[in-house]
Amino acid sequence: MEWKPDKSSQIPVYIQISDYFETRIMNGEYPAGSSLPSERTLAALLDLNRSTIISAYDQLNSLGLVKRVKGFGTIVTLSTSAEGHVKRVPNWEEYVKSGFLQLNDPITRTIHKIVGSDKPYINFAIGELSADLFPVTLMQEAHSQLELSQYLGYEHIQGNLKLRESIANHLNRYRNIESSSSSILVTSGAQQALQLIIQCLLKPGDSVAIEDPSYSFSLPIFHSAGLRTFRLPVGEEGIDPEQIVSLYKQHKIKMVFVNPIFHNPTGTTLAYNRRKRLLDISTKYGIAIVEDDPYSLTSFNQEPMSTLKSMDQDGSVLYISSLSKIVSSGLRIGWMTGPQAVIQRLTDAKQQLDFGHSNIPQWIAAQLLSSGELDNHLMQLRVGLQKKLQLTMNALRTELGDKVRFHIPSGGIHLWCELQGDWDELQMFNLAIDKGVVFTPGSTLGSQSRHVRLTYSKVDDLLIGQGIQRFAEAYLQCRDEKNSR
Amino acid sequence: MEWKPDKSSQIPVYIQISDYFETRIMNGEYPAGSSLPSERTLAALLDLNRSTIISAYDQLNSLGLVKRVKGFGTIVTLSTSAEGHVKRVPNWEEYVKSGFLQLNDPITRTIHKIVGSDKPYINFAIGELSADLFPVTLMQEAHSQLELSQYLGYEHIQGNLKLRESIANHLNRYRNIESSSSSILVTSGAQQALQLIIQCLLKPGDSVAIEDPSYSFSLPIFHSAGLRTFRLPVGEEGIDPEQIVSLYKQHKIKMVFVNPIFHNPTGTTLAYNRRKRLLDISTKYGIAIVEDDPYSLTSFNQEPMSTLKSMDQDGSVLYISSLSKIVSSGLRIGWMTGPQAVIQRLTDAKQQLDFGHSNIPQWIAAQLLSSGELDNHLMQLRVGLQKKLQLTMNALRTELGDKVRFHIPSGGIHLWCELQGDWDELQMFNLAIDKGVVFTPGSTLGSQSRHVRLTYSKVDDLLIGQGIQRFAEAYLQCRDEKNSR
Repeated sequence: MEWKPDKSSQIPVYIQISDYFETRIMNGEYPAGSSLPSERTLAALLDLNRSTIISAYDQLNSLGLVKRVKGFGTIVTLSTSAEGHVKRVPNWEEYVKSGFLQLNDPITRTIHKIVGSDKPYINFAIGELSADLFPVTLMQEAHSQLELSQYLGYEHIQGNLKLRESIANHLNRYRNIESSSSSILVTSGAQQALQLIIQCLLKPGDSVAIEDPSYSFSLPIFHSAGLRTFRLPVGEEGIDPEQIVSLYKQHKIKMVFVNPIFHNPTGTTLAYNRRKRLLDISTKYGIAIVEDDPYSLTSFNQEPMSTLKSMDQDGSVLYISSLSKIVSSGLRIGWMTGPQAVIQRLTDAKQQLDFGHSNIPQWIAAQLLSSGELDNHLMQLRVGLQKKLQLTMNALRTELGDKVRFHIPSGGIHLWCELQGDWDELQMFNLAIDKGVVFTPGSTLGSQSRHVRLTYSKVDDLLIGQGIQRFAEAYLQCRDEKNSR
Repeated sequence: MEWKPDKSSQIPVYIQISDYFETRIMNGEYPAGSSLPSERTLAALLDLNRSTIISAYDQLNSLGLVKRVKGFGTIVTLSTSAEGHVKRVPNWEEYVKSGFLQLNDPITRTIHKIVGSDKPYINFAIGELSADLFPVTLMQEAHSQLELSQYLGYEHIQGNLKLRESIANHLNRYRNIESSSSSILVTSGAQQALQLIIQCLLKPGDSVAIEDPSYSFSLPIFHSAGLRTFRLPVGEEGIDPEQIVSLYKQHKIKMVFVNPIFHNPTGTTLAYNRRKRLLDISTKYGIAIVEDDPYSLTSFNQEPMSTLKSMDQDGSVLYISSLSKIVSSGLRIGWMTGPQAVIQRLTDAKQQLDFGHSNIPQWIAAQLLSSGELDNHLMQLRVGLQKKLQLTMNALRTELGDKVRFHIPSGGIHLWCELQGDWDELQMFNLAIDKGVVFTPGSTLGSQSRHVRLTYSKVDDLLIGQGIQRFAEAYLQCRDEKNSR
């Protein structure tokens, strides 16, 4: 080998090596299937460290020119066209491995694949309403009142004005929160609000606190954004705010993410004195609070629940809610309210991300929120949810007796179950899928404690018994296998 | 000062100093309005570099405890509650400066503010249709055929199946592109498709090529994602593909972003032989192409335009289009098609970002795309757009004669105008706004060459003359002022 890299050049040596082989591969000197020199040989030839050669070959690999096959070395993968030209289609496998946004974890991906499939799974995994709980009449009414002769261009990026006014009225009437159309941002569900907050208000290396267990654990966005996350264990009365103080002192946490009412997944509610203390701590240390409140209107005993935002005197809470868990998840109407500076910053980002929400769902949502029939619907919804919860708990007790334990929630859509004994979580998840039932394994939500989440809102009343029966079978089979070893 | 930082501790010295003052401020030893020791004094007292003190004070500033006032030093800003407790509301000003997603540039922010306001600006800045060009009857028809008794839960995250099938048929019939429902992702306009590609397929430090000028310049996402962008000048025949080869050899560019047909903003179309050459280069060097194609169906002479994707034998093009420029921007229906691996990766990301698109606009879009009336609408649209273009050019010639030059586009919605002489761009932009007319300054789109973009699609025919008159006044006034100096 006569060629040598120029060590005095500004171009890194590994790039020079990669360029050298790239040219030779493109010229056809190394045809598809041929091997490049072994790392050891080339390192000796060029008088370089082996790590430099590895970097060069990795670079060729990321360019889609070679594959590194264990035991076989570095093989040229470039194909040659019928006319004898070398062809090098973009290496999509490499592209999809890049990117700021990381992939969902495998279990979450499986759950989404199942939800998207045609097969009739009994689904205790997805947080949405069953067909009979949707306010179909209300939707049709709102829909029929639309005037489609109105302007069909872009909506205001912050959200349709009439919808923002309806949301402000709704927040005032139903959740005791003062806001105005200018302090509200319409988002694609609560999910997008969380995304915008993380992508716009925090920077890599910042520390935040999230509940343990929590829906947040299933969101790769925290890691994608390079945040350091610290856990706040959730007990019967929710998180312990004093732990925030010590986290602040140690790690200077900048933001706390909480779902205080009918918490996902535990179903617990943050005790009133703890809510007060959380706010005190927030304004003592200047820590922002993000309150996710999808469930507060589902209280089975109709007790009005005080959101943190309704108790927030100092504007330290960013409040997120949506129509997804009370009207229709398919509309994708969520919102947040907070200080003007934040709403403006996030509106600018939403323009970049999707140029604002679709118009028609916003017009429909505005009608729905102003309808006098919403109260009736919420009443029916609470009764319907409570019935599903009762059916689920009854079936669990029948099938599993004292092998299962849970805290009985007084609202929301999730039942957090502890399953006794020794069993393999992933095995049980897959076995349940084979039997036609899906649930959310606790580890997806950050739990290390042999829990599973059963979301009862979506399953047809008539199928709950059968679903829990299959679920119990999967569990017992896994436990017995483990014990018989 | 008795306290000294512990230089042997693992905690950085500047953090120790910041912690020290934080405790004292919180204790009330330094009340609101009081000053901390000057940087110089404290550095001498603690026997440290002044830069360490600056870092400590910056940290206190980012915690919202102090403000650094030029000429006055470092002032405690913490307020004290009526009960005498120190209160420290989250410092939102600091939060909004953080974040991965950077802000839009000031001119773009001004344009969006104007679009969101109630004042009747004559708007040559926003890329959407005017009220008379929307297919209102078609929309009403599609709307009335909806059955709202159908399931109101989450749609498939990749997009409603019927809509994806309609898009595949549409692409086949209107744009000669082969695709299938499984290779299509429904997005919130083309904007979100661009975002997803950048956030999922590229990593910080990657090099990409974009057209100059280009809509891409107005998107902070390239910089937010840490990409290195290289320019491909757009001439009468579009970009010169050979420049991609040299960019690849120098910078290993991984992706090329192009809008080949009725280019935004120049209105030019990439010549056929250049389109072929671009594809050759893509598959010779393995460079991915992103083709943004919002305008190809607006050809004034009805000539069918060959998209890159229709000529792509090897699957190296990611193709993006939408209904925004031909039906309704407010629906927010866009789509992309590409290799399965890419579509799956981006679908997973869309789940994280917004949990899929809203249902109703997708059902309506599926109806629209399958309607036999779409052809008629497109015919009317072309006539309507061409008329607006003609009115705009006539008015420009009347008002400005040979002081303005432009290439006459044969489709699309933008007219790219070169204004002669010496004039200040920002001054002209602001003056035009004062006169009630908005346009897009060339620099927003990356141009350094005294150009402006006039988007004629949105302005009412009857207002075009008046709009151009005001525009011309603003230009002449700026030019005269500059010359009289």
